[in-house]
Amino acid sequence: MRYVVIMAGGAGTRLWPMSRAGRPKHMVDVGGRSLLRHSFDRLRGVVPAERIHVCTAAAQREPVLDELPELPRGNVLGEPCVRDSANAIGFAATVLGARDPDATIAFVSCDHIIEPVDVFADALRTAFEVVDDRPGALVTCGIVPTYASTALGYVERGGPLPGSDRAFAVTAFAEKPNQLTAEQYLESGRYLWNSGTFVWRADTILNQLGTHLSAAGAGLSRIAAAVDTPAFEATVAEVFPDLPKISIDYAVMEPASKTGADIVVVPLGVEWLDVGTWPNLATALGTDADRNATQANSVLLDSSGNVVVSDDPDHLVAAVGLTDMVIVHTADATLVVPRAEADRVKALVASIWELYGERYR
Amino acid sequence: MRYVVIMAGGAGTRLWPMSRAGRPKHMVDVGGRSLLRHSFDRLRGVVPAERIHVCTAAAQREPVLDELPELPRGNVLGEPCVRDSANAIGFAATVLGARDPDATIAFVSCDHIIEPVDVFADALRTAFEVVDDRPGALVTCGIVPTYASTALGYVERGGPLPGSDRAFAVTAFAEKPNQLTAEQYLESGRYLWNSGTFVWRADTILNQLGTHLSAAGAGLSRIAAAVDTPAFEATVAEVFPDLPKISIDYAVMEPASKTGADIVVVPLGVEWLDVGTWPNLATALGTDADRNATQANSVLLDSSGNVVVSDDPDHLVAAVGLTDMVIVHTADATLVVPRAEADRVKALVASIWELYGERYR
Repeated sequence: MRYVVIMAGGAGTRLWPMSRAGRPKHMVDVGGRSLLRHSFDRLRGVVPAERIHVCTAAAQREPVLDELPELPRGNVLGEPCVRDSANAIGFAATVLGARDPDATIAFVSCDHIIEPVDVFADALRTAFEVVDDRPGALVTCGIVPTYASTALGYVERGGPLPGSDRAFAVTAFAEKPNQLTAEQYLESGRYLWNSGTFVWRADTILNQLGTHLSAAGAGLSRIAAAVDTPAFEATVAEVFPDLPKISIDYAVMEPASKTGADIVVVPLGVEWLDVGTWPNLATALGTDADRNATQANSVLLDSSGNVVVSDDPDHLVAAVGLTDMVIVHTADATLVVPRAEADRVKALVASIWELYGERYR
Repeated sequence: MRYVVIMAGGAGTRLWPMSRAGRPKHMVDVGGRSLLRHSFDRLRGVVPAERIHVCTAAAQREPVLDELPELPRGNVLGEPCVRDSANAIGFAATVLGARDPDATIAFVSCDHIIEPVDVFADALRTAFEVVDDRPGALVTCGIVPTYASTALGYVERGGPLPGSDRAFAVTAFAEKPNQLTAEQYLESGRYLWNSGTFVWRADTILNQLGTHLSAAGAGLSRIAAAVDTPAFEATVAEVFPDLPKISIDYAVMEPASKTGADIVVVPLGVEWLDVGTWPNLATALGTDADRNATQANSVLLDSSGNVVVSDDPDHLVAAVGLTDMVIVHTADATLVVPRAEADRVKALVASIWELYGERYR
């Protein structure tokens, strides 16, 4: 059976003060819907709601269930602590694989706005079909690059799979390149952005994890034995802290690509906006004639290129003669930062946590 | 008897959103005290509290009484509508003159932070003494200029009064000069900034208003007849809207200076900070090593030259890589404007009023 797991584990520090401990990134509103809801809505026509799962921090289980009431309770998996994507994927594959040994699972991120949605859904279906034909395959979706990005990892594709014009063998994974290399990648037409979207059978990925991340194997086996028993939560709570903190790319995809595994990429020709920083989120919101992106009750006089966000529709944000600034207002904190400095919000938030402890976390 | 009237009639639009219809400029907090309280505290040792009056908008009577509980109720005069300084002064002189025909009144503004306070108090006492000697005198306090300001009017002084080294005859009033003229004024040592601080007998100023602003005379006479009677408020409400809207400088000081009136200036060697705009208010607040002036719970990382004000001590204002910006946070509105554009807040507020009516007024 086909399943989808939405990975909603990120803290989203660079979206502070909108993204908070109690309202992590996946709950941040973009154009009237949370990122989680955007992600869920994108899966219409891929699998029915009862086969959509969310893997998130344990403390986020209830808020996620509130946000997506379509989901059965058992479909929201809570991680007791953050152990990066390899273990989130291992955990979800363990649970779903225990419930359905024939499970094929698409792992998708909810950190992006993707348009058009039907192209994305279509690629996921293609990826599922590849796994139907090739049960041992590790399939990833690769975004067709629209510019020479130095901020993303790449997947190099080889020739098309036999009988397919939409799925290709992967010849290598490449880390974030320098500008020159990124331009060569773009020109070659053979490189795709590594999107963090994967489709594989539960047993396949668990085997791969057993091979390449043996430190996780014993713990995941203990969890597998406890799935849907009263001991489940306690077992998860006991196992998780000892799992190594590592991404699926480092733990599995890169070593597997060097040891002859059947790695396949399905190219994805979409607008793919990472909303991890305020300027990027602004791009997802769209801009007016003065390049202002607003999701707030605002009056911006002779102002351009600003990002203005508030979660309080009664609060007015007003500016005059203001250029290329990010303003984010919440009930207990306001952020003002030049667009060009938006990457430093992470450092700012670290300072705030140091000064205030839990208070504005 | 000597009295002081604090003029607290300004709206303070350029201090929006801190200055509001329900919390006008004189209620804005500067360094832990309202401007009104600063002004009141400056008068210690000049006259006792029961002889200090406040002239303000009628709607502000109760808030002013709450802010200055030292004042008897009758000492707070409410103007039904704004009619500029000539009529505020005429109104207060009418009321105080009716209660004490021998009243000598100092009119002071509450738009400034003045240091040192005892120099100011001393100058007021000198001005009162001048009027004791010369009952028909119009005395003004003139600030000794510290730079060639083109934003202020000037008072030109002649020789010292007989037997005095602290009071001088006024030879002319001069409007805001251009830069070259301002520099000549500064160099001459004969020009003082027109501070809007006046000392005169009630009967003297009412006579002058009768001569130079005859349109106001009949109305003020009607008010005089009603002082401390049950008809007082109704009479004031009826008379005020018909009074001409004009400043005391245009209405009296300039014409009087050309018709041989006895106009005297007492120089005032103080730091005299108009807090009418955010950058000026910041100067009054003082700045840290990074030139940031803050009256807010704030974290400013690698940021300099900013003005950050909030009226909510629990709200955090955070910035990184921010330079020369004004941020003002209140419960229902936040302002962000470059320091250099702070004069445009008035135009911004006009836009907001046009869009929202009373809502953020």
